[in-house]
Amino acid sequence: MTVDNHKMWNELDMDVEMHDLLCEALPVAFGDVYLSQENRPEGMDFFNMVVADIHGIRPAELIKHQEAGGKVVGTFCIHVPDEIAVAGGAISTGLCSGSQFWVPGGEKYVPTATCPLIKASLGARFDRTCPFFRIADLFIGETTCDGKKKAWEILAEDAPMHIMDLPQMKREKDLLHWRDEILGYKDKIEELTGNQVTEESLHDAIVLINNKRRALQRLNAFRKEEKLPISGKDVLLVQQIAFYDDPARFAQMTNALSDELEQRVKDGVSVFPEGTKRILLSGTPLSIPNWKVHHIVETSGAAVVGEEMCTGSRYYEGLVDEEPTDMEGMINALNERYMDIHCACFTPNTERIDDIIRLAKEWNVDGVIDVNLKFCGIYDIEGYTVERALQEAGIPVLGIETDYTDEDAEQLRTRIGAFIEMIGEK
Amino acid sequence: MTVDNHKMWNELDMDVEMHDLLCEALPVAFGDVYLSQENRPEGMDFFNMVVADIHGIRPAELIKHQEAGGKVVGTFCIHVPDEIAVAGGAISTGLCSGSQFWVPGGEKYVPTATCPLIKASLGARFDRTCPFFRIADLFIGETTCDGKKKAWEILAEDAPMHIMDLPQMKREKDLLHWRDEILGYKDKIEELTGNQVTEESLHDAIVLINNKRRALQRLNAFRKEEKLPISGKDVLLVQQIAFYDDPARFAQMTNALSDELEQRVKDGVSVFPEGTKRILLSGTPLSIPNWKVHHIVETSGAAVVGEEMCTGSRYYEGLVDEEPTDMEGMINALNERYMDIHCACFTPNTERIDDIIRLAKEWNVDGVIDVNLKFCGIYDIEGYTVERALQEAGIPVLGIETDYTDEDAEQLRTRIGAFIEMIGEK
Repeated sequence: MTVDNHKMWNELDMDVEMHDLLCEALPVAFGDVYLSQENRPEGMDFFNMVVADIHGIRPAELIKHQEAGGKVVGTFCIHVPDEIAVAGGAISTGLCSGSQFWVPGGEKYVPTATCPLIKASLGARFDRTCPFFRIADLFIGETTCDGKKKAWEILAEDAPMHIMDLPQMKREKDLLHWRDEILGYKDKIEELTGNQVTEESLHDAIVLINNKRRALQRLNAFRKEEKLPISGKDVLLVQQIAFYDDPARFAQMTNALSDELEQRVKDGVSVFPEGTKRILLSGTPLSIPNWKVHHIVETSGAAVVGEEMCTGSRYYEGLVDEEPTDMEGMINALNERYMDIHCACFTPNTERIDDIIRLAKEWNVDGVIDVNLKFCGIYDIEGYTVERALQEAGIPVLGIETDYTDEDAEQLRTRIGAFIEMIGEK
Repeated sequence: MTVDNHKMWNELDMDVEMHDLLCEALPVAFGDVYLSQENRPEGMDFFNMVVADIHGIRPAELIKHQEAGGKVVGTFCIHVPDEIAVAGGAISTGLCSGSQFWVPGGEKYVPTATCPLIKASLGARFDRTCPFFRIADLFIGETTCDGKKKAWEILAEDAPMHIMDLPQMKREKDLLHWRDEILGYKDKIEELTGNQVTEESLHDAIVLINNKRRALQRLNAFRKEEKLPISGKDVLLVQQIAFYDDPARFAQMTNALSDELEQRVKDGVSVFPEGTKRILLSGTPLSIPNWKVHHIVETSGAAVVGEEMCTGSRYYEGLVDEEPTDMEGMINALNERYMDIHCACFTPNTERIDDIIRLAKEWNVDGVIDVNLKFCGIYDIEGYTVERALQEAGIPVLGIETDYTDEDAEQLRTRIGAFIEMIGEK
């Protein structure tokens, strides 16, 4: 929290006084959850620094980009293709909010019975307590769920928004519908930036974002090791920062971390004691700084080895085909990749069940915790099918519902602890 | 509850013992809410009879239709065009459930934080306690909201389903999308019934269903009278039965009721004392036997003169253009009419605000109660905009949230009573 940051936040017309409360709380939470870990990889230093000054360093870079005539777009969903914005010379940044700090502000506009991610995102904008929500020149909403679809109408009264209409099924005509929405996004970006999305710039962007995914894939592969060289918490943090950081630098720093982990594997170094149980999380996204479930799991005798989540495998699995270099081919490749995300907003969505079982097997997990953010209806209802399928596959599963408060932490600790103990008794 | 009904219910493989509990409770509720009213129109006798034997008379007719080789389809949403089913020789019946009786059965399959309409509908099917859910040869689901979209996946494990994908916006391409879904529904009906939907049968069906709407429009026009010749409760009952009864008979009986009301208007007969406050309800549907809010309003010194609801103006306003007689023209006319429903599932949905203000003025109301079924996210979030718009228009508004239980009845009575008193103080 430097003087420079305060100057920047004031210039962004932020509620600096209120924001200072967040700035005071975050380092404490980060210290408790992260810095208390032992034997962390040195490669995490970069990510520690990013989170320590998350409302300083990156916002300053975005503003510098704007001062040079560039544009910044903010997104809330991994269905929105970053490649389009990047190809138009814009910077695309994630906006999903993961702190209870912003929730009460959102509850002034949407019902309490709305998922905390949506409430926090609205609160962050309306309360003027997040620089990213002040900086973005354009906000990209989508119709992924009832809550977002309707909340964007309210957000649009305060922020410039472009809505992408995600289809609800995946028939041929639905795929064409999304292709059309991607083209509409391209038009919007060109209008915003004044730049053309060219075949060259789009191909470069596809490679750039693929490289980010490749770096995350490489990092996640280490979680298959019997001796885990990195905690689940640390990988979660890297994945959360992936939504905010410069994609090229992010891939570079994540690969540097992986180089270190490679050496750790050779040396047989693990951050967990032998026999630590292995947990896959499935469900709704965990936006920064939502570390609650990981922290509970990893201080209850288990390790999180994967996240079947938007802040996990749904984000980094699946590359865009780099073969096509003509505009039509690249748009089709983008469409194919982005429509292959197995979000609960689609009906049917049986591929997600297959994903969870596949990840559970490949990462050799002892159990799955299906995590639902309170009032996320689509994942909550799909949880019925997910849990049944896992039981049928003989994979222990625990369904939990949580939000951004700490009120349920002790109850979760009890339930998760009992689950971890239970799966130890195979 | 005759011996014949029990025979029929057994043949439908219903849980007759459990269903008997409903049969015992319903007449008591109906007596308390309806038969306690004074000076009801004689034309309500027909509707009293229908509801008194709602699981007997009409189910027997549907079975008779099936025995003669006909098919029955069940629907959950007023976006599904009955005209298509009727033109294919099928009977289309509503399936939305309005009783708490079915809710616990549904909660075995979907989360508690799901709207009672969806939970009750699933419970009615899985518990085998509603003949309509046993009789239907095909269930038509739609993607109107997250809850329904995902609940249909679970219902489809037990019931034959066809899903219509309602677009989430109303741009030209979205209208074409729904047109395509209507054509898909036509194919499905033809496949189910073995009949062709011909230009003649479709035009007949359009006129038939329009006549039902005209009858409801005529009935609702009486609620504009200063001296109200019929209670809001009674009109609600008629509107609820509209979803179940034979359309031609329904129109005939509703028009007969209107003939009587016409005479009442001439004679200056009112069922309310002079100075009774006039209330418009807006919001989520009130499926039979959900009479709670009407009953509270009308025993608290006010009359309900309109429902901006799926079980109200959204159902009966807007006729299908009867001009076209060729297939393409009629499909377009259907599409135009059905895409002109102002459901909160669309974004944006500002036309609904215009509707509410228009209805409030035309029906000369003293206030609007915006009713939300618990956990209906789309109407809940839209309530923010609705209430603000009404306040700006100088129309008193009260937002309430309720479900199918009676637990909140006293609290609602207090709040609604205070609201009615307040709007009297203009």
